[in-house]
Amino acid sequence: MKIEILDSTLRDGAQAEGVSFSVNDKLDIVKALDKLGISVIEAGNPASNPKDLELFERMRSVKTVNAKVAAFGSTRRKNVPVYDDAGCAALIKAGTDIVSVFGKTSLLQVDSILQTTPGENLKMIEETCRYMKENGKQVIYDAEQFFDGYKEKPDYALAALNAALSGGAYCLCLCDTNGGTFPWEVAEIVRLVCRKFPGTKIGIHAHNDSDLATACSIEAVRAGAAHVQGTFIGFGERCGNANLSAIIPNLQIKGGFECIPEKNLSMLTSTARNIASTSNMTLHKATPFVGRSAFAHKAGMHSDGVLKVHSSYEHIDPALIGNHRRILVSEFSGKAAVYKRIKQLYPDIGKNDEVVTKIVNDLKQKEYEGYQFEGAEASFELIIRRAAEKYESFFDLISYKVLDELPYDNNHSATATIKLRVNDTVKIAASDGEGPVNALDTALREALADFYPCLNEVRLTDYKVRVMEPKFATAAQVRVLITSADKDDIWTTVGTSNDVIEASWIALVDSIEHKLIKEKSQN
Amino acid sequence: MKIEILDSTLRDGAQAEGVSFSVNDKLDIVKALDKLGISVIEAGNPASNPKDLELFERMRSVKTVNAKVAAFGSTRRKNVPVYDDAGCAALIKAGTDIVSVFGKTSLLQVDSILQTTPGENLKMIEETCRYMKENGKQVIYDAEQFFDGYKEKPDYALAALNAALSGGAYCLCLCDTNGGTFPWEVAEIVRLVCRKFPGTKIGIHAHNDSDLATACSIEAVRAGAAHVQGTFIGFGERCGNANLSAIIPNLQIKGGFECIPEKNLSMLTSTARNIASTSNMTLHKATPFVGRSAFAHKAGMHSDGVLKVHSSYEHIDPALIGNHRRILVSEFSGKAAVYKRIKQLYPDIGKNDEVVTKIVNDLKQKEYEGYQFEGAEASFELIIRRAAEKYESFFDLISYKVLDELPYDNNHSATATIKLRVNDTVKIAASDGEGPVNALDTALREALADFYPCLNEVRLTDYKVRVMEPKFATAAQVRVLITSADKDDIWTTVGTSNDVIEASWIALVDSIEHKLIKEKSQN
Repeated sequence: MKIEILDSTLRDGAQAEGVSFSVNDKLDIVKALDKLGISVIEAGNPASNPKDLELFERMRSVKTVNAKVAAFGSTRRKNVPVYDDAGCAALIKAGTDIVSVFGKTSLLQVDSILQTTPGENLKMIEETCRYMKENGKQVIYDAEQFFDGYKEKPDYALAALNAALSGGAYCLCLCDTNGGTFPWEVAEIVRLVCRKFPGTKIGIHAHNDSDLATACSIEAVRAGAAHVQGTFIGFGERCGNANLSAIIPNLQIKGGFECIPEKNLSMLTSTARNIASTSNMTLHKATPFVGRSAFAHKAGMHSDGVLKVHSSYEHIDPALIGNHRRILVSEFSGKAAVYKRIKQLYPDIGKNDEVVTKIVNDLKQKEYEGYQFEGAEASFELIIRRAAEKYESFFDLISYKVLDELPYDNNHSATATIKLRVNDTVKIAASDGEGPVNALDTALREALADFYPCLNEVRLTDYKVRVMEPKFATAAQVRVLITSADKDDIWTTVGTSNDVIEASWIALVDSIEHKLIKEKSQN
Repeated sequence: MKIEILDSTLRDGAQAEGVSFSVNDKLDIVKALDKLGISVIEAGNPASNPKDLELFERMRSVKTVNAKVAAFGSTRRKNVPVYDDAGCAALIKAGTDIVSVFGKTSLLQVDSILQTTPGENLKMIEETCRYMKENGKQVIYDAEQFFDGYKEKPDYALAALNAALSGGAYCLCLCDTNGGTFPWEVAEIVRLVCRKFPGTKIGIHAHNDSDLATACSIEAVRAGAAHVQGTFIGFGERCGNANLSAIIPNLQIKGGFECIPEKNLSMLTSTARNIASTSNMTLHKATPFVGRSAFAHKAGMHSDGVLKVHSSYEHIDPALIGNHRRILVSEFSGKAAVYKRIKQLYPDIGKNDEVVTKIVNDLKQKEYEGYQFEGAEASFELIIRRAAEKYESFFDLISYKVLDELPYDNNHSATATIKLRVNDTVKIAASDGEGPVNALDTALREALADFYPCLNEVRLTDYKVRVMEPKFATAAQVRVLITSADKDDIWTTVGTSNDVIEASWIALVDSIEHKLIKEKSQN
């Protein structure tokens, strides 16, 4: 059975704390969702947000392949003819195929928030839907606070749905606006609504306030809903919207429903990471299905078990959704897991070779110093390579000095000088920069440019600083994670120090060595 | 009905990627969970982790008020007398009231992982439980992969439970080890197991791989389970364990079950934040119930609605669990929300005063420059204060210079000099430090110490750096968030710049001004 998925990352997702999209960000996300095969993309609220008007304007030149675009807006104001309502005019002007019209279904809300009569609210719903239909739109009616309204007075909640249907809505979407409804309540009410409106598409719009949005959404589908609203990686106001990157694989892989074209399932993980990156949000490592840790195994016993019988600790094959298994290196994982990694790099090293013990000990020492290699696999690889005899470093630092000042005379607050030895040549370089790490990074690249031109391809794509013992205040040790990319690879390196510049330096050096090793092995 | 809650933050939680506890961390968490009224604290695996042995040693001197402590370990090895098994000996030696014994219930696991016979596995379970009981322990049997095992061969899965019961286990805990079971499957199987073992406490241990762990846990309780295992803020291997900070309020506030003493419910939020901080984990803002954003309202309309009828966008009163409502300041929230904050600080300023427009415009300008005041309320307050006439700054920067170098001669890689004007005095101070921000922070405090002795009370408790446009690499603008604390208050300030030191400086200055204003208003 086909389920229509509506993604509201750009509308409800934009209401998450810390999220703010540029028009370009929004267009990038539309393209990513369309490519994945999402049916409907709710792109914004043209009446409330001036940026969204520009978006819809520019969207007309973007051809989507799979998705229809929807604009979101309210029923007309009370006691105003629908053709005189500015919000409705903006909705039509957005020029989308679909409009999502939201309105009230709870008497308490009609009385306290709208401050109008139950009858006028029903007219607002019906007339707005009809007006949109007459203007060539396909109409989704978003029944706000539906479950609370239904529990309060079922007849009125159903009358509101009926008004939308009479007005021409093709989908009646039931919203658990405050996220407080239990999954079994959702199932029962959806089942009943489906029975009352046979042949009409019933939808579910859940929020995660009770940590139950995924469960509510899939229970609704089991009870007959055929339209699911959410945001792709679950962000949204408060605790977020229903997380489509978890709902889609639950429904499609385990439930037998079709949410997106089957061949696109393996794009789920990359789409989630792409949207997180465009939104400048961290995709929480533990995010079900698509998180970096979703199939990561740390405990020695688990690592062992999952290698023998995958289903021991994996509910699906991660490859189905484009994620992959990781065996983490930590105090929990034994020599076996470390050896497995060594073997990938140096197939000739035997399990009982001395170098294996040396690497395990180096690792323990580094972890004791505050390193964590989970998530910084490129640095971990370098520990192995540096311990293996064959490794020669590409350059050695003699010294660096970084000066940062305020106020500053020219355009840059920071200046770095660096002295390196490459083979037998001593090279000095200097650079100013946007801050001390940039100055040092630029000076380092400057110093190495003649020796290693391939470094021009490397971009730093993320930079994170974490204070490790907050109680030591600004003197605390910090861990810096740097993610770098070239045209076909992404890698993360780590450095720790009490000095954020030194920690950054260590991670920068690892990043560059990773690239140089890769380059060397390809030539 | 009373539900026994078992928290496994220190055992299963310690298997989360990025988590590593010291013995002191573990003792702090035991105290926090005990104070909240958790029934059982699973503190570690004495056979697998040497740190845990030290923990149990030291735990004997800690008197818990509400909680019993449990040690976790495996059934005996195959074909070994239980009294000769080192793991079982370690479990007893841990000296806890309770032991959790885990064992296999799935034939596939018995065959592929244990590589023994079905009969020997049943003996391993029964003999281990009995041996623990004989040694004075209360025994929980953790039936690994129970749901998968049950679907595979129900009779064998039930036989495994029966073996544990014969051995003397007081609780049979059904584990969804790979997190792949749907809530309705959990409900059906738990209901059946409860019927087969009347009078025995049945437990649930869920993992969040399908984003359904909270739903599975509460469905199990509705189906008859009276023991719930999880970790307090949901961390654990892969996608984490069932999140007790969501399960407890769902069951207790909405479901009428008693999980912790009713009077302690309002400690839920502070306990969650305390555990996150001790674990050095970020408590995700959007975490249901206890996250900072869990009751935060951003969209103008929502802010409006929630102030009129709380239930519009809040499923429970946040005060019940010690959280609170926040109305966020952003491009979505109108002048009304900003005015509300102004009014709290300056009750005399009227809605239409010119200064209100000025503040709204300052705010828009700052947001345009990359600031976000969500989460940095102290800096937002300072924008208001600086716009209001009454504000006088406590000091003005003339200049600073920071030098950072590698290698370095003395113990410190960074040195800062700073020149300030306080009233009409020019003050110069210098300091070295553990990195440039520490050097600058120390020099700043040094310069201000004679003028404002109360600054000695301020500790910096967290320091975060976020790259805002990763594509600009090390030259990108960064946003620094600094959280500071004194004896009775915690506040967060923000600074942005292309230069991490300058951004830190801005946030440091705001932090100090916040303290000085507070001090002034108290005198």
